[in-house]
Amino acid sequence: MRIAVLASGSGTNLQAILDRLHGRGKVEVVGVGSDRPDARALARAAGAGVPTAVFPVSEFAGRDERDAAIGDWLESIACELVVLAGYMQLLSDAFVRRFAGRIINVHPALLPSFPGLDAIGQAFAHGVRVTGVTVHFVDEGVDTGPILLQRPIELTYTRPVHEVTEEIHAVEHEILPRAIELIADGSVRIDPDNPRLVRIEER
Amino acid sequence: MRIAVLASGSGTNLQAILDRLHGRGKVEVVGVGSDRPDARALARAAGAGVPTAVFPVSEFAGRDERDAAIGDWLESIACELVVLAGYMQLLSDAFVRRFAGRIINVHPALLPSFPGLDAIGQAFAHGVRVTGVTVHFVDEGVDTGPILLQRPIELTYTRPVHEVTEEIHAVEHEILPRAIELIADGSVRIDPDNPRLVRIEER
Repeated sequence: MRIAVLASGSGTNLQAILDRLHGRGKVEVVGVGSDRPDARALARAAGAGVPTAVFPVSEFAGRDERDAAIGDWLESIACELVVLAGYMQLLSDAFVRRFAGRIINVHPALLPSFPGLDAIGQAFAHGVRVTGVTVHFVDEGVDTGPILLQRPIELTYTRPVHEVTEEIHAVEHEILPRAIELIADGSVRIDPDNPRLVRIEER
Repeated sequence: MRIAVLASGSGTNLQAILDRLHGRGKVEVVGVGSDRPDARALARAAGAGVPTAVFPVSEFAGRDERDAAIGDWLESIACELVVLAGYMQLLSDAFVRRFAGRIINVHPALLPSFPGLDAIGQAFAHGVRVTGVTVHFVDEGVDTGPILLQRPIELTYTRPVHEVTEEIHAVEHEILPRAIELIADGSVRIDPDNPRLVRIEER
């Protein structure tokens, strides 16, 4: 399966995908795109010999135009799955429809709790004892799409936020590649009776 | 610690409290109240020699009057903690203020996800891969109070709802008595810097 990764930041999730999946037979990272020319994700991609593309906010009239360009690039590289890995721009509805069912995102909370920005901070402020990580398909809403995988993490409030953040990132690096692998294996389908329910049948 | 339990239904959480805590030195169940004269919880209480009281909806002008009567009864038995265990009536704001910080509830989801009725059904409909159980202090909102304990449960959608429901109830029977025990031990306090955060320091 040919996948592309969109990232805005340090690209540790991209690195996990490169390390665990890329070039091992099932999954090929065929492009890494970013809104930021200085994203470390781009350097990681280059280091792995993966083509990159940059779509700076300032170079487009608006989100629709930018996302149309990203979409054209993704189609030009025959991308079959778009993976959002710390991509900090909202996607236009037209983009989401263009790649319907072929975009996944990783979110540092157990959705539907704490969607949107600073999910870890939201969890701490709310005082939950369990948070976690979600990998979900992307729909037109903010972190509202059908859920593929989740893994819980205990919060005891005896550890500093940065330690919990590291643990959450480590779980992201496990379950995002795992979700991609399940899709590549053909083990994932939407339940015909409930479009919110992702059925996983490992082969 | 003298506790009272309010229940509307079969009373399995009450039974767990009676079996695990009652009369073992730390915790005494001094009363069981219900809105339903036919609640099995009342028979369980009677079987354990615990006084009962019934406050049927039909016998009071409204919720305020009923909750005032429940409050007077709780004070008459010198109740220190009110435990909601399947109590299906909403409590009046006046009742919540009267027993502020001294009411806890058990809810079959990982709050803030899926508050309100049929939390297990909500979780299935949403397609989450992780749900669970929450014990929380009761405030004026619906399932919005500070969280004491949570425990996650994996949903695979390969088991029928009734099996998952049984697992969730079994977790309730673990963590509700555990929460009561922690309060009785004096191990629980609200964080002075964040009124939503429950600090647990086991002694």
